[in-house]
Parts: sequence; structure tokens; C-alpha cells
Amino acid sequence: MKKIFLVCSALSLLLASCGGTDSARRPAVISPEVHADHTVTFRYLAPEADTVLLDGQFQAQRALMTKGEDGVWSLTVGPIKPDMYPYNFVVDGVSVMDPGNPAYFENERFKGSIVDIQGDTPLVHSIQDVPHGAVDYDYYPSEVLGTTGRILVYTPPGYDENPDKQYPVFYLISGTTDTDETYFKVGRANFILDNLIAAGQAEPMIVVMPYGNPMAYFQAGDPRGMQAAMGLNQDFLNVMMPYVEANYRTINDAAHRGIGGFSRGGNQALTLGMNNLDKFSYLCSYASFAGNVATFETDFKQFIANPAATNAKINLFWLGVGTEDFLYPTAKSFMDKLEQNNIKTTTLITDGGHTWMNAKNYWAESAKLLFRK
Amino acid sequence: MKKIFLVCSALSLLLASCGGTDSARRPAVISPEVHADHTVTFRYLAPEADTVLLDGQFQAQRALMTKGEDGVWSLTVGPIKPDMYPYNFVVDGVSVMDPGNPAYFENERFKGSIVDIQGDTPLVHSIQDVPHGAVDYDYYPSEVLGTTGRILVYTPPGYDENPDKQYPVFYLISGTTDTDETYFKVGRANFILDNLIAAGQAEPMIVVMPYGNPMAYFQAGDPRGMQAAMGLNQDFLNVMMPYVEANYRTINDAAHRGIGGFSRGGNQALTLGMNNLDKFSYLCSYASFAGNVATFETDFKQFIANPAATNAKINLFWLGVGTEDFLYPTAKSFMDKLEQNNIKTTTLITDGGHTWMNAKNYWAESAKLLFRK
Repeated sequence: MKKIFLVCSALSLLLASCGGTDSARRPAVISPEVHADHTVTFRYLAPEADTVLLDGQFQAQRALMTKGEDGVWSLTVGPIKPDMYPYNFVVDGVSVMDPGNPAYFENERFKGSIVDIQGDTPLVHSIQDVPHGAVDYDYYPSEVLGTTGRILVYTPPGYDENPDKQYPVFYLISGTTDTDETYFKVGRANFILDNLIAAGQAEPMIVVMPYGNPMAYFQAGDPRGMQAAMGLNQDFLNVMMPYVEANYRTINDAAHRGIGGFSRGGNQALTLGMNNLDKFSYLCSYASFAGNVATFETDFKQFIANPAATNAKINLFWLGVGTEDFLYPTAKSFMDKLEQNNIKTTTLITDGGHTWMNAKNYWAESAKLLFRK
Repeated sequence: MKKIFLVCSALSLLLASCGGTDSARRPAVISPEVHADHTVTFRYLAPEADTVLLDGQFQAQRALMTKGEDGVWSLTVGPIKPDMYPYNFVVDGVSVMDPGNPAYFENERFKGSIVDIQGDTPLVHSIQDVPHGAVDYDYYPSEVLGTTGRILVYTPPGYDENPDKQYPVFYLISGTTDTDETYFKVGRANFILDNLIAAGQAEPMIVVMPYGNPMAYFQAGDPRGMQAAMGLNQDFLNVMMPYVEANYRTINDAAHRGIGGFSRGGNQALTLGMNNLDKFSYLCSYASFAGNVATFETDFKQFIANPAATNAKINLFWLGVGTEDFLYPTAKSFMDKLEQNNIKTTTLITDGGHTWMNAKNYWAESAKLLFRK
């Protein structure tokens, strides 16, 4: 009785308004609706609109939706290859998120929703019935950034139950206009590791997701933002990493430390890694490259001076990119530069573009090879 | 040199595109821009739009923005009383978030942005230079919900440094259409406690933020969603709480356990609390009430049968509501019912409506009184 009573009371309040501005509140429309055959129906309530388009990374071009008599525009697309895709609606030229979908594409600049099309067998990023690690939002004071820095820290399953166990640590950086949350919310870095660890395909590890663009801690236009950007490197090595090592049970040597990232985050990760082989022996590039490929030999003179010595310090130098990625030519040239200079790498060329579908995939593939030497 | 090089490389990639759909990507426009005098300039790029309105909880009515020659609509409003406010733009009738503002109003149903107007002296929810607790996103298997449940868990500053210390625990539930993230991202429950603890105004405690609407774990229309809603109570008491108590250093008796919530979450919290005084001795209602006030005496017959015995089990029964809240008459009637039945309460009537500005404030005010008996 108590249970029924509570639920009925709760449901009776389900339609109450709780904080949104009036124009932002909308009747519930089911969207997206993923069907068993991997087709998806998208819906958007806009009785007054002239055109509503569906824009999504599962299709090459925007598609016109159809207006129903109830004012709900809808479109069924697919079947779509199971994965998580960003999408949004374009209502009379205005880009909007799907109002009824709480899965946000976390980003500084644009606003997208996420549709999760699950596979007939679970995908590597799916939430499965395996032991789960936790993701901590943690805060550290940084005089370099001029503010309180934030990091997201994945601790693997069993972390709290084994208080004497120490773990290797990987620093994972999102791309341009992404936030420190993107590799968690969109990249599913945690669930990918949960699944790989449960299957014996990856080592338990700590993963730190910092903010690749500390300018975003400040209001746009605040000069401290540029100061934070200029201090990025120093904060990373001299403030954030020591904070992590003081507060999490990391193994603090290069053999148990890795760094990688997507897009601009890959640039940051590789530049930090290649210039600090005393600190990092696992380097990963997801749809990225380091520095300016045209001046590679000058910029990384020390790195390539003695390839045997450099290779001896690196346990894994992993690079992945998609052939449709707008950065593909540069990323591929960077791979070639490394090969020409006798630096050992593990590379993966896939199809697809500069997408978070690929960013997830590259993380999953490289994670299997981390801390296994 | 290395630092400059990295930053320049990173900045050169700053405008690269990294995963958004084309229509969702926009040139950077500074918005919101908070000025020193607490006025705020909002901007939105929409060269083709006929009207752009600003809708925000800092003003009574939507305000028309002015179109500039560069296609950027703008409006300066205020001075505004320092606080965090939800807002959005209405572009030719379509409600949108502020594209360049990464502060989201986390919600299932509508999409809003947040403007943070800081006070001349720090507000209780501000990020201050004090020791910070962490917020863990943690996952637990629930046969009752039929899925993996998620909770956000605040652990206070020093939690990891004092591995033998145990803490009281408060369960804090967001409102209708809010998510398990809303009391963290919008309610700043963690920063409020950090600041109060640093000032000696609150006890260090663990705060668990569960999902008040487990239906949202499922795709809209999935019948398992309703099953999860029906199992809400059972999951809370028999699955989620035991998980918390097994994985965090909680003190597991009623004297060290509290429960509260905003709006529908307050309904859930009070109903659970009032029916389980063997488990909870601190009950908090933020702009809410329990059950149906018209049938109060029947619904809570046991609770009011022996007021002295009931009062002896309760360390704090705290209720706050604003006079402009659409739930004010009901919440006030509920307070009156408790008083008429000789149940001891601590009440706070404020101005303001059913807003997260008030939800934050009520949490801060009640948190000062928790676990101090």
C-alpha cells in the first residue's frame, strides 16, 4: 500500500512545473523512439513552424520532417548502424536540441542531443550488467589557472574495496569545444573500461579527464581565460597531476602513466607526452596529430634524434584516424613522419569522420593495449 | 618555449570542428556577459530571424532583443540580484538554449541555460577557495528497476584522507522533470556544503542524489519505465540505500540519516521519511508536501496518532516554500496540518516562486541544521 501510495502521489506531480522558463517547457513528445529494427522515429512539436529538419551524424544530409495534424513534426530514418549519434533539429533555420531527450552532447559551443541505438548484442560502450567503476567530479585549486580546476576521475570496479591496491593512470583529453564531461557523457570512457575489464580485455586503471580548454572556466572575454590557456601545460604537469597523485592511488612512474586525446586534446596529449617521456610511456592519438607536421623534424628534434632510445622509453604509441576525417591527411602525414623517423607506432585507419563514434572506438581499441607491458 | 608552442598549436585547432552536426555549430558569440554592476548582456546570432525574445527567471516577462547589423541579437538587462538563473531564447517562437554557454539546466523535458551572477561578496553556492568535496557518479544493479541505477554521491572534504571516519548521510531528491544531476549542476548542493563546512556552519556529511524518476532510465514508452516508477520506493529502501551503506562510510542509524527533496522529490522524501521514522530522523521539504493534503489525517494516521512519540523520533522536520510558488497554498496547508496535529516543525516562508534559486536556498538553510543533535 505504501508503495502504491507513493507512486501515485509522485505521478500526480509528474506534470508540475519545476524551474523551467515558460517558453522552455513543452508537452512530452516521445523522441527519439528507437525501434527493434534499428530505425528511429524523431518527433518535434512545433505547430507554428514552416520547416523542421533533422540533422544527425547518422545521415549525410539534413532531412525534412513531416508535420502532423497535432503539430508534431516527425520522421523515421534508418535502419541505422547501432551506435550513439549526435543530432539536432533545425526549426525554421534555428538549431535546437530535442526537448524531451535528456542525453546532451556536452559542449561549449553548440547544442546537440544524443540518440543511442543499441546493438542486438551489447556494444562496447553499452551499460551492461558488469561491475561498474565510478566517475568522480573532483576540484583542485590552481594558482596557474587562476581558479578552481575540475577533473573527472574514473576509478575502476573494486577501487574502494582494495584500499592498498595501486593502479596505472591514463590522462584522457576531449577535443575542441568539448568539455571535461564529453569523454564521460558522450565518449562513455567509463562504461567502455567497465566492459573491457569485465571481459579481461583491459587492465584496471584510473582515468583522469581534465578540461582541455581552461579558458572555459571563465566568462567569455575575461582576460584570465587567456592566462589559463597559456598556463595549460604548467597546470597539467605541476598542479593537476600532483593533485591526482596525492588523492588517488596511482602508480607514479612512466611505466604506469599514459596520455591521449581526441582532436585538439590529442594534440595536447601528444605534445605533452612526446616532450615528457620521463613521465609518460603510453601515448595515444585519436583523430589527431602533434604540433605542425610541416615542421615536425624541427619541433621534435630531440624526440627523433635517437629513435632506439626514444622507442625504448615508449610502451605504446597508438594513433587512429578515419579516412573521411577532415584531419585525415594531416593525421596520416604525422603517422608517416613518425614511421620515416623510425618511431615505432601502432596505427588504426578506419572509415568514418571526425566523430565521437570514432573517438569512442579509438579509446576502446587503444585501452586494450594499455599497461600490458 | 614548449609551453608557448603547445598553446599556439592548441589555439590553432580551436576553431576545428569536433563532432557537432553542421547546423549546430555556430560562430562564438559572447553570451551571457555579466557586468560588474550586475547587469547582463545576452546575445544570439540569428541573421535570418524575425524576432528573438529573452526568457529568464530574473524577469517577469519575456523581453524582445534588438538585432544588430552583424545579425547578432542582443539585450542588456538588470541589474539583477546575484544568483544563478535559468534562461533561454525564443527565436521566431522556438525555444533554444544559449549556444555558447556550457552551463545547462539539467532536465528531462525542457532545455535551458544558466546565467551565474556572482555577488560582491561570495554567495553560499559560489565556488570559493575552500576545501572541496567530490561528487561521484556511481552505478548499482537493481532488479527492482530492471536496469542499472545511477546515484550522485557527495563526499565531504577530507573523506579520502580519513579512511576510518564515518559520516551521517542525507538523501536529496530533485523535482519533476529534473534529473539526478540537477541538485549538483543547478542546485550546487556540493559547493553549498563545501562553503558551510568551511565556515563551521554545517557538519561534514555524505549526500546521495538519486533519480526521482527512474522511468527516465528507459526510452520513452518502454513499459519497463512504468515498472521502475512502481518500484521506486522498494529500490530506494532495499537496493539503493544498502548499496550506499556498503560502499560509503555512512553511519547507519536514524540519528545519522536524513531525507529531503524539491517539489515532487520533496513529496517522495517526506512520504518515505514519515513512513520510515526507524530509518530517518531528519526530514526536509523544499517547496513541497507529502501525499494529498485533503486526506492527510487518513494517509498519515499512524504518524499523527501519538505526536509526542513521533516528535521524539524526529530531530528535524524542516519545510520551506515561497509565497509566489504555485504550490504555496498546498505546501502551507501541509505545514498547518502538521502544526494542528502537534508535529514539531521548523518552517521558512520566503518570497519567490517554484524556482531553483529557492531550491538552493532551502537546501543551504536546512543543511545548517542537519546532524547537529
